[in-house]
Amino acid sequence: MTIKAFNKLGKAEKTKQLLACCGSSTWADLMVKQFPFSGEADLVNAATDVWYNQCNSIDWLESFTNHPKIGDLKSLTNKFAGKEQASVAAASKKTIKALADANAAYEAKFGFIFIVCATGKTATEMLCLLEDRLSNTIGEELHIAMGEQMKITILRFQKLITEGDWRVLKQGQLTTHVLDTSVGKPGIGISVRLQIPVNGVWQSIAQGITNSDGRVGDLLPAQKKLAHGNYKLVFDTGSYFAAQKIKGFYPEVEIQFIVFDDAHYHVPLLVNPFGYSTYRGS
Amino acid sequence: MTIKAFNKLGKAEKTKQLLACCGSSTWADLMVKQFPFSGEADLVNAATDVWYNQCNSIDWLESFTNHPKIGDLKSLTNKFAGKEQASVAAASKKTIKALADANAAYEAKFGFIFIVCATGKTATEMLCLLEDRLSNTIGEELHIAMGEQMKITILRFQKLITEGDWRVLKQGQLTTHVLDTSVGKPGIGISVRLQIPVNGVWQSIAQGITNSDGRVGDLLPAQKKLAHGNYKLVFDTGSYFAAQKIKGFYPEVEIQFIVFDDAHYHVPLLVNPFGYSTYRGS
Amino acid sequence: MTIKAFNKLGKAEKTKQLLACCGSSTWADLMVKQFPFSGEADLVNAATDVWYNQCNSIDWLESFTNHPKIGDLKSLTNKFAGKEQASVAAASKKTIKALADANAAYEAKFGFIFIVCATGKTATEMLCLLEDRLSNTIGEELHIAMGEQMKITILRFQKLITEGDWRVLKQGQLTTHVLDTSVGKPGIGISVRLQIPVNGVWQSIAQGITNSDGRVGDLLPAQKKLAHGNYKLVFDTGSYFAAQKIKGFYPEVEIQFIVFDDAHYHVPLLVNPFGYSTYRGS
Amino acid sequence: MTIKAFNKLGKAEKTKQLLACCGSSTWADLMVKQFPFSGEADLVNAATDVWYNQCNSIDWLESFTNHPKIGDLKSLTNKFAGKEQASVAAASKKTIKALADANAAYEAKFGFIFIVCATGKTATEMLCLLEDRLSNTIGEELHIAMGEQMKITILRFQKLITEGDWRVLKQGQLTTHVLDTSVGKPGIGISVRLQIPVNGVWQSIAQGITNSDGRVGDLLPAQKKLAHGNYKLVFDTGSYFAAQKIKGFYPEVEIQFIVFDDAHYHVPLLVNPFGYSTYRGS
Repeated sequence: MTIKAFNKLGKAEKTKQLLACCGSSTWADLMVKQFPFSGEADLVNAATDVWYNQCNSIDWLESFTNHPKIGDLKSLTNKFAGKEQASVAAASKKTIKALADANAAYEAKFGFIFIVCATGKTATEMLCLLEDRLSNTIGEELHIAMGEQMKITILRFQKLITEGDWRVLKQGQLTTHVLDTSVGKPGIGISVRLQIPVNGVWQSIAQGITNSDGRVGDLLPAQKKLAHGNYKLVFDTGSYFAAQKIKGFYPEVEIQFIVFDDAHYHVPLLVNPFGYSTYRGS
Repeated sequence: MTIKAFNKLGKAEKTKQLLACCGSSTWADLMVKQFPFSGEADLVNAATDVWYNQCNSIDWLESFTNHPKIGDLKSLTNKFAGKEQASVAAASKKTIKALADANAAYEAKFGFIFIVCATGKTATEMLCLLEDRLSNTIGEELHIAMGEQMKITILRFQKLITEGDWRVLKQGQLTTHVLDTSVGKPGIGISVRLQIPVNGVWQSIAQGITNSDGRVGDLLPAQKKLAHGNYKLVFDTGSYFAAQKIKGFYPEVEIQFIVFDDAHYHVPLLVNPFGYSTYRGS
Repeated sequence: MTIKAFNKLGKAEKTKQLLACCGSSTWADLMVKQFPFSGEADLVNAATDVWYNQCNSIDWLESFTNHPKIGDLKSLTNKFAGKEQASVAAASKKTIKALADANAAYEAKFGFIFIVCATGKTATEMLCLLEDRLSNTIGEELHIAMGEQMKITILRFQKLITEGDWRVLKQGQLTTHVLDTSVGKPGIGISVRLQIPVNGVWQSIAQGITNSDGRVGDLLPAQKKLAHGNYKLVFDTGSYFAAQKIKGFYPEVEIQFIVFDDAHYHVPLLVNPFGYSTYRGS
Repeated sequence: MTIKAFNKLGKAEKTKQLLACCGSSTWADLMVKQFPFSGEADLVNAATDVWYNQCNSIDWLESFTNHPKIGDLKSLTNKFAGKEQASVAAASKKTIKALADANAAYEAKFGFIFIVCATGKTATEMLCLLEDRLSNTIGEELHIAMGEQMKITILRFQKLITEGDWRVLKQGQLTTHVLDTSVGKPGIGISVRLQIPVNGVWQSIAQGITNSDGRVGDLLPAQKKLAHGNYKLVFDTGSYFAAQKIKGFYPEVEIQFIVFDDAHYHVPLLVNPFGYSTYRGS
């Protein structure tokens, strides 16, 4: 389908397709009113704006509830087990079991299933993210999960509008990159949180994990613009060095910064066990 | 007087002298029991240990109450006005008035007078510190003020034991130094807080301001040892650059670090408007 | 034409086409013997290897002589003048005149015309590069110019094999990026030299200028592999800050580093007037 | 003796005492004319000025020749062997033998004995410095050795004017400090050279080795002022990491900087195997 074809569908069919992308009836109803869309970016911008600014916790929770349950042992095994080589099968089984357990603990704590945009993530990365998110408050998790839902929605749009030109979507407005200068390599598998101050207390609004190049490019859904103001990135450098049995001086690295405008913000971290640097990158 | 002479005083006279150094009856009573002292460091170590570990908020408040009131306009004018040159007299009057007002606001908010080890500080630095401390919680202020009281106590010991060798006192266990690498000069007049996590919330336990060399050497009283664990330094870099009308990226710089042992910890900050570094110094 | 079609040409036609890409008869003769090529990367690899390792100064000079002369006022005006807006026409005329003069000075000093891969460069960048290269020794210029010739050869290959998939070509093995952390922006228009030690003396073998993103991506021709060993990058930070009337501490930043293997080497520079950092990037 | 007493000596006795401090007849003759000296700093300033600016290679060589020979096995054993504990005696013997051999190699290459201000240096540090200086040109060694001679002269002044207040002497105008941020410790035993450009070629004019705190405080004799202009510090980071069997990216770290005025210049290096920083310190 093209965007043009999507524009021409009847109201009922539009709603059905939208609900298949994001299971919130409020969101789908508000989106239907925004047709027609001039292009892919226009569609995503509208979807993001409605989701962040015109929907609320009830709507977000509804969409979580309408998710297929993928966190149980059987689903996870289907998803991940086939992708592992024979030699790592044992480890993989253990990881998948841990994932299933953590999914259950998550649902028990928060009352909704663990929502994450899993595309491109290994079982180990998923497990690290999940365990990290388990320590959040429910208010933080609602915001993080709804951001993940938006990333999933965009992926589903891409599967729906297969004939679209999706290269128009920009990378998230905020990116980071960790380099470990004690070895000249990317800092891999480091949990990164994005926080904002709410009544003087820093609250997580997004969470990611550095990939094999040390980067987190999708802390925010494509096209999502941050409100201007103060933000903080928190890197779990303590776990990173501890996992390598290296004594490090910094349990966490926190970087506060200001978003002045709608430009791209790249906030990298050069870290080694007893020193670190940051700068505004480009 | 020498330490030996102090050791030989009668109990009543000892108590009197101690109370003149720190106006807490609990502290003075506990200290009397610790005599004799083998030297200056021994005396200060005992005084610090008793103050931090065997006294409590009631005792600290008692010592604050017994302080001479130095924050009113007349006392401040006596203290600072004579030291300023004619050309800055007007500014100085304004600063002294602001200091007196801030002292009054402080006492109104917290119920006790502003305690600070003023030695070596200009009126402007005092004002900056005071305004900064006004935003603290009462719990934070109790701890910061009792630390300042300990520094004052040590200075009073030095005036009492005039024949002692006070060079044995070490610099505080934690020091910092700010360099502004955009101009190759010390970062002067920057407020620095030391914090610890209490039930997951960072609480200030000491506060200082960088001097004309960019350093804070006395965040902690001489001889005070930090408990091993996690700490955070918070530098008010936002105000520093804003005062120079320079657009900066970092509203605050927060540095978490671990105190592993009783060694000296030097945690410097190299800062410029869009980048900063830290490392464990020596 | 495709690579396959190129492979099928007769020897005379192959030679003719090769000479149109690089005017050295030795290079063309050696290349003819290497046919057939399995693909675009294969062609470029062979061309690079022959040029660097089997040709010598005589061959390089021959190719320079066979270049169309583009450094005179008329050619430069044709190339650059049309691209400038009316408002900058005066400045542009001045720049073009300066370029023509520098070209003449270059030819007078070295005996051959200024060879540079001009694609994507503005007149101002060309002028900066040219003036910078004028200070080199003839030995350095022979190497720098032959590297530029190779980049030109590759561009001509792309115009010849229009039906090829040129995305297979990799970025140069060595890249750099300058960020000015005093303003949070790329360091633009900074001359960068790559040097190797020859009998204990550092000799320039490639030269570039940071683009509008602060990057130099083409110090080396695509596919060119550096011999393992010691290298140095020299950044003309003195001119960069002087042009902005900023007092800086560092006349040049020199970074020595070791190429251990055939991996990509990214050697960035974070600079501000009184401090700088470098690290192995990724 | 006091400076006043020195001022009152007869000309012959003055000359004799001066020659015992620095064995150059030209220097002693010129110094005699400068009496009386108002204080310790005045004496050292004059001695330094005459030595650097009014003496030449012939004079410097004369002073080297008049040095007691201390580089042979017997002298070295007397100097160093007694200071080592029994457990390290074997290693020490080996070091002393290596020192004696290197002293002989030095004299064979340069024609004069190895001059170094040995105060406070261990045998191992001496050996490192000596082996490093063996690679210099004779022109570089003449300058480095005459600087060392000046440091020795100042020490001899202090032994002559025992009743002087020598605290007036300042630390050398240029200092450095190496911190290894991969371990949070000083970078110890790193050779550091100070260079100036002479006809476009960097020449060493002073050489030191980082002490147990990572510092070199005496690259220059006390009171010596650097001419304003460009300088370079070269740190042998390659040997430092290689000695620890750590793969490092930087064979040497070179830092060019500008001396603008007579202020103190502190040029530190924060290094780790794949990254480094420098800044103007204070």
